[in-house]
Amino acid sequence: MTDRAEAIGIFDSGMGGLTVLRAIRERLPSEPLLYLGDTARVPYGSKSAATVERYAQACAGVLVKQGVKLLVVACNTASAYALPCLRAELDAPVLGVIEPGAQAAASQTRNGRVGVIGTAATIGSGAYQEALLRVNEDLRVVAQHCPLFVPLAEEGWTDGPVPRQVASHYLASMRQAEVDTLVLGCTHYPLLKTVIGEVMGDSVTLIDSAEATSAVVAEVLGGAGLVAPEGETARQRFLVTDSPQRFAEAGARFLGHELREVEWVDFS
Amino acid sequence: MTDRAEAIGIFDSGMGGLTVLRAIRERLPSEPLLYLGDTARVPYGSKSAATVERYAQACAGVLVKQGVKLLVVACNTASAYALPCLRAELDAPVLGVIEPGAQAAASQTRNGRVGVIGTAATIGSGAYQEALLRVNEDLRVVAQHCPLFVPLAEEGWTDGPVPRQVASHYLASMRQAEVDTLVLGCTHYPLLKTVIGEVMGDSVTLIDSAEATSAVVAEVLGGAGLVAPEGETARQRFLVTDSPQRFAEAGARFLGHELREVEWVDFS
Repeated sequence: MTDRAEAIGIFDSGMGGLTVLRAIRERLPSEPLLYLGDTARVPYGSKSAATVERYAQACAGVLVKQGVKLLVVACNTASAYALPCLRAELDAPVLGVIEPGAQAAASQTRNGRVGVIGTAATIGSGAYQEALLRVNEDLRVVAQHCPLFVPLAEEGWTDGPVPRQVASHYLASMRQAEVDTLVLGCTHYPLLKTVIGEVMGDSVTLIDSAEATSAVVAEVLGGAGLVAPEGETARQRFLVTDSPQRFAEAGARFLGHELREVEWVDFS
Repeated sequence: MTDRAEAIGIFDSGMGGLTVLRAIRERLPSEPLLYLGDTARVPYGSKSAATVERYAQACAGVLVKQGVKLLVVACNTASAYALPCLRAELDAPVLGVIEPGAQAAASQTRNGRVGVIGTAATIGSGAYQEALLRVNEDLRVVAQHCPLFVPLAEEGWTDGPVPRQVASHYLASMRQAEVDTLVLGCTHYPLLKTVIGEVMGDSVTLIDSAEATSAVVAEVLGGAGLVAPEGETARQRFLVTDSPQRFAEAGARFLGHELREVEWVDFS
């Protein structure tokens, strides 16, 4: 039987999923969180479906072994490729970031034109496009992969002429299609929100899946009777497959506070 | 006893090492070549020394198991971190790309000012800087990591204002130091040679380690009595840890001809 005192497990290819962790923490401060960043194999977004599925299964296996009551796939690429196999294999509920993001976008658009940007793998999978059309088959969906956004965000190169020109290049099709809502379909992209907003203009709503995902996490925990007992702010632990020290340093920039309890794991 | 009919083993984190394979093929057309691209774990250049060393040992293990008479570490990052441990563990001679590149640069410079560009890991290791000073301790060496060059090269985004601005940004310190020789210390960078050349100016010599490495391979094979019998163009095989089909497609662009015999392997 699942124990409601167990942690919510969250995994991502690297650091980007910390935006999802933060949103869950803000909404559900009593929930213990266990995060796994596969920093030794990052990125997933340029790799094949078979490899991403294999890595996602391995990540889920590590978290399940530690004991988690709910699994959040915080990586868009892993959500795009691995949700069906993870749901088939695991007893715990498994949530991805794509459906919540698609739901939020479909409810925000006024003109029915929605853009989605993500990694080559996420966009190539068609997962966002399908999820949006499942919510509303009349939507017009424009998708674009933006492979340079992740390295720019990781380098902290988030303003100035270079990111602006890269964004103008990638987002030209979105502007041409006159989307009024744009899904940031990669957990790194919120770091480039200012530049993306400048290129798209004030009238376009940017959708960050982290917020929408945390709302679904709260609903599912409630529905399954798995809400942690109210109390003090609960424990946060981090597992990584590359250097814990580097993750702690860069993660502190992501989260705005120190990361304690970062441990190395591997599954090879 | 080593068999001189065995292949030369070459490994890289991904595709970049194909530039080294091509240079060896051109110089030594009778040598059978066995290439391993660790495309499921690429890139190495942003990862920790411990992880790069572990992956390099695993790659070398796969090649040795297949039987190779000489091992070429075609990845600058793996050369920077893993040469000592590979040399200690393996019976076959092990060559990296850093010493040949440093030798070539030291012999080309006229004003004694040499620049080196590479991944964060390669530059952070200090391996090029040390190798250059071992050749000539009077050299003035300027080093700069250029993390966006790999994604730009992989996207084929090799000319126009974005790569030019990125290059101007990264190479400002090289221009200021008035280097007359610049080592392209990452196997992807030759793809950006035009833009790098424009920013640095005609008077600066660009050093691509692939060519220098192939000369050292020829010397070592000769010295060890391991030259393959003369004959027809020898077999080339490719092993990859992610999708063979993708590698074959992208590899054809790198090499300018079709890649047959691409197989999937893994070592996890």
